[in-house]
Amino acid sequence: MEKLILVSNDDSIEAKGVHELVRTLRSLGQVVCVCPEQPQSGMSMALTVNNPLKVKRLDDYHGAEMYRVNGTPVDCIKIAVDNLLPCKPDIVVAGINHGSNAAINVVYSGTMGAALEGCAYGIPSVGFSLTSHKEDADFSACLPVVEKIVRKVMERGLPEGICLNVNMPVNVAEYKEIRVTKSCKGRWNDRYEEYRDPANRPFYWLAGNFVNEEPENEDTDEWCLAHGIVSVVPVKLDPTYPRPEEFRWLAQ
Amino acid sequence: MEKLILVSNDDSIEAKGVHELVRTLRSLGQVVCVCPEQPQSGMSMALTVNNPLKVKRLDDYHGAEMYRVNGTPVDCIKIAVDNLLPCKPDIVVAGINHGSNAAINVVYSGTMGAALEGCAYGIPSVGFSLTSHKEDADFSACLPVVEKIVRKVMERGLPEGICLNVNMPVNVAEYKEIRVTKSCKGRWNDRYEEYRDPANRPFYWLAGNFVNEEPENEDTDEWCLAHGIVSVVPVKLDPTYPRPEEFRWLAQ
Repeated sequence: MEKLILVSNDDSIEAKGVHELVRTLRSLGQVVCVCPEQPQSGMSMALTVNNPLKVKRLDDYHGAEMYRVNGTPVDCIKIAVDNLLPCKPDIVVAGINHGSNAAINVVYSGTMGAALEGCAYGIPSVGFSLTSHKEDADFSACLPVVEKIVRKVMERGLPEGICLNVNMPVNVAEYKEIRVTKSCKGRWNDRYEEYRDPANRPFYWLAGNFVNEEPENEDTDEWCLAHGIVSVVPVKLDPTYPRPEEFRWLAQ
Repeated sequence: MEKLILVSNDDSIEAKGVHELVRTLRSLGQVVCVCPEQPQSGMSMALTVNNPLKVKRLDDYHGAEMYRVNGTPVDCIKIAVDNLLPCKPDIVVAGINHGSNAAINVVYSGTMGAALEGCAYGIPSVGFSLTSHKEDADFSACLPVVEKIVRKVMERGLPEGICLNVNMPVNVAEYKEIRVTKSCKGRWNDRYEEYRDPANRPFYWLAGNFVNEEPENEDTDEWCLAHGIVSVVPVKLDPTYPRPEEFRWLAQ
């Protein structure tokens, strides 16, 4: 029987990255694509609890069912699995995100929010991102990598509670290898730029740059992306630190 | 020198839980409270990247500086640390959340989003939640537990990259012990209730109940809460699965 593939993203149903993804995945199964109406970058695993959701079915795209939802990436996965799909999908594929979700970005990413939500349902789930912020980023160059990884995951599955954060280097058309890595240590050196509105009231806009704290470590996603290598980070849904005995002092 | 304590939450600056928290923490140091303008339950680590933030200073409350921000819990922590505080705080305390953040709820919780963001800055951070959805929930009964745990964390610190998810049982006034536990395995059995708007267009509202998959396991947060025990789960910010060698088949 044909496999059922659920696709979502955080760049919205209008994004080029998700259209390229849908076209490629059509060769691997039946595709249903459920995406946010509005861009949802940085929405992490946010879900809508205090507002209603509206779902709009759009025209099919290359044989895939297309839906837009006025919510977050997590909302899209939830309402797809609970209400829109005929059965639990075989895989959740999120992306292709326009910009890197390497290092600490994994925790803020709406694309990875969708993948983690798939994981919460016990569905093998993968998020794909392209390390490019150019407006005309070429997502088609990602497709051989996407197809290769999705095929493997569909064949072999993933352990329960673990999904994949796949980041592709900007020059992915000539990628050197696919490497299983870890999130690079580092932090955002944030600052808020101050502006004044027409009534001279201040408002603030987030700016800043990522500071890599282990630039020489070849096992990190950032190093791989800087060296033309596709990075795959296995990501755990359950954030419990596994050695509670180290915290017994809290209970005394 | 007096310690600097940053307080936030996800139930908004109007919430009773954060006011009780601020009053208690005043005995432990200088308190600055920066909370969302609107309720942000279920906002996880969402942050605002495509919109400006506005910050409003309110009247002091029991000697604490109070600010409201038109953003998420993560935004509150970021703008507090980057723009509002005189220096990096000694601790971030989030809550007291109105409702449990045990089990899988940790990943959706805006309260824990604030604590995790504190952790991302390298600040010892703790999120507190009370397992009660009653409108008149008695947060004052939580205060001895809050004070005890915050004191210990201020004395001893926390390992880098780890924060605490503290959940208090509904009968916390008579709590039996404080136990270091793990997130209980389980999942939300979601369903979307369907409604019709006045123009007969459908909309959906999330409902559902939590299914505990290990109800007999005494080391879980859910078991403790059901048995009058305060649960402390150490939570990792970095979700990387630590054994990449198990995923080498993806790279072949």
